[in-house]
Amino acid sequence: MAQAVLFHSGKVPPAGWLAAIARLAPEIEVRTLDTLGDPAEIDVAISWRLPSGTFKHLTGLKLMQCSGAGVDQLLADPELPPDLPLARMVDPLQADEMVAFALWAVVEQHRDLARYRAAIQQQEWLFQPQTSMRSRRVGVLGLGAMGGKLAARLAALGFATAGWARTARTIPGVTVHHGAEGLAALLADSHILVNLLPLTRETRGLLNLSLFRQLPKGARVINLGRGPHLVEEDLLTALAEGHLASALLDVFTTEPLPEGHPFWSHPQITITPHIASLADPNHAAEQVVENIRRVRAGLPALNLVDRQLGY
Amino acid sequence: MAQAVLFHSGKVPPAGWLAAIARLAPEIEVRTLDTLGDPAEIDVAISWRLPSGTFKHLTGLKLMQCSGAGVDQLLADPELPPDLPLARMVDPLQADEMVAFALWAVVEQHRDLARYRAAIQQQEWLFQPQTSMRSRRVGVLGLGAMGGKLAARLAALGFATAGWARTARTIPGVTVHHGAEGLAALLADSHILVNLLPLTRETRGLLNLSLFRQLPKGARVINLGRGPHLVEEDLLTALAEGHLASALLDVFTTEPLPEGHPFWSHPQITITPHIASLADPNHAAEQVVENIRRVRAGLPALNLVDRQLGY
Repeated sequence: MAQAVLFHSGKVPPAGWLAAIARLAPEIEVRTLDTLGDPAEIDVAISWRLPSGTFKHLTGLKLMQCSGAGVDQLLADPELPPDLPLARMVDPLQADEMVAFALWAVVEQHRDLARYRAAIQQQEWLFQPQTSMRSRRVGVLGLGAMGGKLAARLAALGFATAGWARTARTIPGVTVHHGAEGLAALLADSHILVNLLPLTRETRGLLNLSLFRQLPKGARVINLGRGPHLVEEDLLTALAEGHLASALLDVFTTEPLPEGHPFWSHPQITITPHIASLADPNHAAEQVVENIRRVRAGLPALNLVDRQLGY
Repeated sequence: MAQAVLFHSGKVPPAGWLAAIARLAPEIEVRTLDTLGDPAEIDVAISWRLPSGTFKHLTGLKLMQCSGAGVDQLLADPELPPDLPLARMVDPLQADEMVAFALWAVVEQHRDLARYRAAIQQQEWLFQPQTSMRSRRVGVLGLGAMGGKLAARLAALGFATAGWARTARTIPGVTVHHGAEGLAALLADSHILVNLLPLTRETRGLLNLSLFRQLPKGARVINLGRGPHLVEEDLLTALAEGHLASALLDVFTTEPLPEGHPFWSHPQITITPHIASLADPNHAAEQVVENIRRVRAGLPALNLVDRQLGY
């Protein structure tokens, strides 16, 4: 029986991925849902999320390869076969793009650039006092491939940097906290809080009013993880009561952000349309091809997800 | 005769500087123009620029200490005594703040964030294809305390980075060009060009139409140096003819930017009101105090400007 790979993406045109895989591994046949043929021939599916009703036809599936770093949307899919190996993308380029975007977001908040932009729109040359980066404490939630690198870069740039992870680790120049007490210590000392945690049972809704109130008054929050990390109404409350000064969000509970949602035009909230992490097929395809070859050689795939941990 | 230091700043309130110097060196008396007393008693003046008519009264002046990194505005002052030693600020914190701001500016241009913001204002969830940082070549003009550090950081983040300086030097991970032919080589290969040169006879008007046309089509230009580096009409022409895609400017020929100036609302130009470099008196004062003590001990000041070179 022929063997083939299924590639599916909701918003990214498939041409880039198909070309990148063809260039690296011409022997691998890649199909899309439009060119699926016999679904039993698909041994590896590459997608961020498959349309409802797809999994049950893929009776020969040996690996679900997520095309992104986060797999919460796949784990939440009741149709995902319970014993199917699931791999996530751990792409150095994607991590680098995320780190660069996160640095952008931290400087946005550090320098209060949204206020300058609002003044510029009024043709006003605004002067406002600035806080130096040496006294601006940045806290990073999640110290994996992305968060760990971000914390190290922030410290190297000159920000007073701390981080928090589930388990203990060491990053040069960064104060690392872990566990429940560690979280409280991080929050008490973070003027700018950046979330890069995976979305799991433990982290869903973590960015809530109780957490915001543990931050210093005037703190700023950046969410680059997943929409459901944040309790959106709680952010509005914390801004309205003056405890938080501003927020920058790239991810939302509902995406695209619904029409009329208060985040579209809130003066203290800067939003971007889920663009922080950028996957380049030319780099990501290397990892995918490696995993396809491993599965076909009877080897375990790389970067397999622990479904209990959720990442 | 009493000895005293004059501090003068146009827009920054003097209290922070006075407190920082008093904390480090209580023996140094600091006056402002309001509390000048006998002008002949002033041996060191700390300022970005002194009001017209001031220098001629400062008959005992031994050092002009610029409160910023760039001294072009002082060198352009016909009242600056020709043999007066002139020192510039080389403050590591100020350089770090500039580097962080420049990284922000590069990511702004790399990710085309102004276009996302314009879409967000229309409540539009924009998807646009992205260029990976590995194939985005960033060129840095000027590799001094700020530009050199920026180029190194950009390369460490994952951008394809090159730089240009008057004289040859080595920066790990960065392709360094120098001299006239070197400039042409840098321009031909820079998708994002960042100017951090000092303003001198040689660099005034460097960012002109002829230079823009040496950049690849669709290039983006960031000016964090001085306003007169840029021929403002030429930028408008290069954008209008479609050769440049966008620009980000922090400095302008006339500051504040005049009412009705086309840069205020140009869709392809992002502006900030001369805020890229942030001087924190608590750090900068250390260097100033050191120079005051050196001058009073008969030693040459640190970071003296070569008036021929202009920096």
